[in-house]
Amino acid sequence: MSKHLTKRADDYSKWYNELVVKADLAENSAVRGCMVIKPYGFAIWEKMQAELDRMFKETGHENAYFPLFVPKSLFEAEEKNAEGFAKECAVVTHYRLQNDPDNQGKLRVDPEAKLEEELVVRPTSEAIIWNTYKGWVQSYRDLPLLINQWANVVRWEMRTRLFLRTAEFLWQEGHTAHATKIEAVTEARQMQDVYAEFAENFMAMPVVKGLKSDSERFAGAEDTYTIEALMQDGKALQAGTSHFLGQNFAKAFDVKFTSKEGKKEYVWATSWGVSTRLIGGLIMTHSDDFGLVLPPKLAPTQVVIVPIYKDEKQLDAISEKMNEFVKELRKKGISVKFDTRDTYRPGAKFAEYELKGVPVRVAIGNRDLENGTLEIARRDTLEKQIVAQPDALIFIENLLEEIQGNLFKKAVDFRKEHTTVVNDFKEFKKVIKSKGGFVSAHWDGTEETENRIKEYTKATIRCIPNDAEQESGVCVLTGKPSNKRVLFAKAY
Amino acid sequence: MSKHLTKRADDYSKWYNELVVKADLAENSAVRGCMVIKPYGFAIWEKMQAELDRMFKETGHENAYFPLFVPKSLFEAEEKNAEGFAKECAVVTHYRLQNDPDNQGKLRVDPEAKLEEELVVRPTSEAIIWNTYKGWVQSYRDLPLLINQWANVVRWEMRTRLFLRTAEFLWQEGHTAHATKIEAVTEARQMQDVYAEFAENFMAMPVVKGLKSDSERFAGAEDTYTIEALMQDGKALQAGTSHFLGQNFAKAFDVKFTSKEGKKEYVWATSWGVSTRLIGGLIMTHSDDFGLVLPPKLAPTQVVIVPIYKDEKQLDAISEKMNEFVKELRKKGISVKFDTRDTYRPGAKFAEYELKGVPVRVAIGNRDLENGTLEIARRDTLEKQIVAQPDALIFIENLLEEIQGNLFKKAVDFRKEHTTVVNDFKEFKKVIKSKGGFVSAHWDGTEETENRIKEYTKATIRCIPNDAEQESGVCVLTGKPSNKRVLFAKAY
Repeated sequence: MSKHLTKRADDYSKWYNELVVKADLAENSAVRGCMVIKPYGFAIWEKMQAELDRMFKETGHENAYFPLFVPKSLFEAEEKNAEGFAKECAVVTHYRLQNDPDNQGKLRVDPEAKLEEELVVRPTSEAIIWNTYKGWVQSYRDLPLLINQWANVVRWEMRTRLFLRTAEFLWQEGHTAHATKIEAVTEARQMQDVYAEFAENFMAMPVVKGLKSDSERFAGAEDTYTIEALMQDGKALQAGTSHFLGQNFAKAFDVKFTSKEGKKEYVWATSWGVSTRLIGGLIMTHSDDFGLVLPPKLAPTQVVIVPIYKDEKQLDAISEKMNEFVKELRKKGISVKFDTRDTYRPGAKFAEYELKGVPVRVAIGNRDLENGTLEIARRDTLEKQIVAQPDALIFIENLLEEIQGNLFKKAVDFRKEHTTVVNDFKEFKKVIKSKGGFVSAHWDGTEETENRIKEYTKATIRCIPNDAEQESGVCVLTGKPSNKRVLFAKAY
Repeated sequence: MSKHLTKRADDYSKWYNELVVKADLAENSAVRGCMVIKPYGFAIWEKMQAELDRMFKETGHENAYFPLFVPKSLFEAEEKNAEGFAKECAVVTHYRLQNDPDNQGKLRVDPEAKLEEELVVRPTSEAIIWNTYKGWVQSYRDLPLLINQWANVVRWEMRTRLFLRTAEFLWQEGHTAHATKIEAVTEARQMQDVYAEFAENFMAMPVVKGLKSDSERFAGAEDTYTIEALMQDGKALQAGTSHFLGQNFAKAFDVKFTSKEGKKEYVWATSWGVSTRLIGGLIMTHSDDFGLVLPPKLAPTQVVIVPIYKDEKQLDAISEKMNEFVKELRKKGISVKFDTRDTYRPGAKFAEYELKGVPVRVAIGNRDLENGTLEIARRDTLEKQIVAQPDALIFIENLLEEIQGNLFKKAVDFRKEHTTVVNDFKEFKKVIKSKGGFVSAHWDGTEETENRIKEYTKATIRCIPNDAEQESGVCVLTGKPSNKRVLFAKAY
């Protein structure tokens, strides 16, 4: 199968689109811009959800669920947020269909069933949630509220791509309410750290933690903290954001609390989210021309065992050994599939698991039975090794860790090679055009300059890194003074 | 708090509505008929999800995700299904808002952004899923498809009640495709068994497994298998349904496969679902005039420990002991909360946990410290007992099991008392009116009779029980011959 996969070097974008479909992750649906997440893709999302949910709960958050619909009057209450999302809102206007009198067997919208107030399908839930929080917060004793929701949201994007940008997507959105500004800022930054830890330790995807410039900030936020990853084509991917919302939503929805000192004060807010877009990032960070490469910590199947046999008797002998081995692996918490399907030959199975990125493949044939060995192949480097059966369990356990580490290291190295410090605009343009990746450059801090650079190069400021050092310099475009470097890149 | 709760005997419906809100499970939102599921209510749903998801996976199903929207032309393809849901569909007609020129700071629907084809917000996903399956099924080798999705759906109901009937609700919907009729029927019945096992073993809610009569069948199904529970007010609750869909959707969406014999055949289908309505059933099965009563297997917190102390020193001594005890309980997989909040007095905490239905409450004061004892109270019977600390761990472990069993037994006994075998229509009316519950009666098998009985009594046929014995008799209304009894009840 993989031989039909376009090579990354030939057309990275085509490679990605093909891979998502061929590896059975997702496909386009009959609804414009909406995807179907197939079982294998969804299994990756479930793994991501499980880890993130654990991390959210360990940091004190609880899950809840708020309505899919936002009445227009609530949606428009926080003006900047409303303005930011108005152009991409799906709107429910009617609540009933009826038989179409002109068209036997067809339905039409019942004109009598028009809603008094239109309902926006949530593009994000600040409005409906802050309208709810108003009833939950009276006193400082009711704070903080540390709530997360796993949900679908809809943003009517004109150009969509599977996982990376779809009209409907799955995500989590945290919405917290605090008594003080410092507590809210700390929360927003904590969640940036949680996202970065998840990206690096589970996805093996290195990220830069930083602050968004004004023009890239979330609509309605005071500050947007982001994690930015670098894909193999040299484009950046915004992988998660955490917003300090100030008192904007509290003011829009009149959410006040009585402080310990008996004063009425507006509540401080954060929101933060990651989405199924992460699956796109995962694919583009590690995969190769042979197919998907999955880090063991998020692979739905970590180990696959393929028996190679001529007849039932050989298969029985192999199965006897391998059923025991499967049990031992599972005891160690390793997910394993023993593929005894007789409708496919071993070669086809090898190709399938290569395409699907299963980290470790074990093959066992008659010769191995005689010699007491297994052939163990790793997906990341495609290396194979003969291992004595008694050593295999520990070997695989170590190998999974090694693959996880190796994928991260490879991605870190790639990012290092593709992060260029640049001091003049000619070089800036050249690097963005030919080499791609992150460009670390001085910027004068104005939106105007940012826009002009975008016009000339299509590169935008991905973030002002949290760890950017104080360094006096001059803006790469205007020559005006600057005191720290920011990261530019073309982005998804 | 619980003293402000309406008594069940005074107004069962009011008791339910108050309890849901006071126990912090859910509340109405700003969107007509849509609820906010609060963290405590959502934690129960998460417990339900985890068990059901495990059971689905153990029976070979995988999760996937399909679009929220269904284009109208797909929605209307299976006519009976479309007809069944057309009257309660939320419809998206536009994809953009714009500034309202007549109303500074307000938004309006952009008339230029009208969709060419309206999108129905899924009330159920057969249409969009079968349109997708068309691309997945070519050969018998592609079957069966055993897929489940966890999702939100919208049915624009006119009269709504928290959990029991809401315009938006959360559910899971399984959608399977099979090569043969017998395999599909077996699947539909298997999932009825899975639901019954979940209801009885986890919710401690006894259910009758049965078949729906024609008039109560799912729109588009050949057969609907149901599990029916009985609430404390004598009304039945349809708690889960599993449908054998025949080839209706395969024909509507032209989904054929090549059989082993090389013939093109239509695929056979099932679908099955349970929803957040189960939380309503859970509440109404076990709770009492003091508040919620939760079965230990679904309680977010199984054990709460309340310290009773006069000063910091006493609290420290108690905490030292209890922190160890908490660890031991957690090691046993018991979820426990040690409530050291100093903003509430022990009495208020007792009332809170009673209202919230925490199965076991442990209290420890100075006297207990001296005597090496704990006071252990169970929520189901409200009994208290003094237990020596070294025995407490095993005591609680056993107690949780005992509560789980006792709740189920109580509910089974209630159902027994409220299931009446009836042979004439005068008695039928009397029982339905005064005693309520299930009425087991003969029925002539016609929809007309069913409708007339409903008119006279508001009772409907809940199901034809799977285990109904062959017994010749005469219809309770018409006197026409009948060969088995069916269960009638008023229902939610």
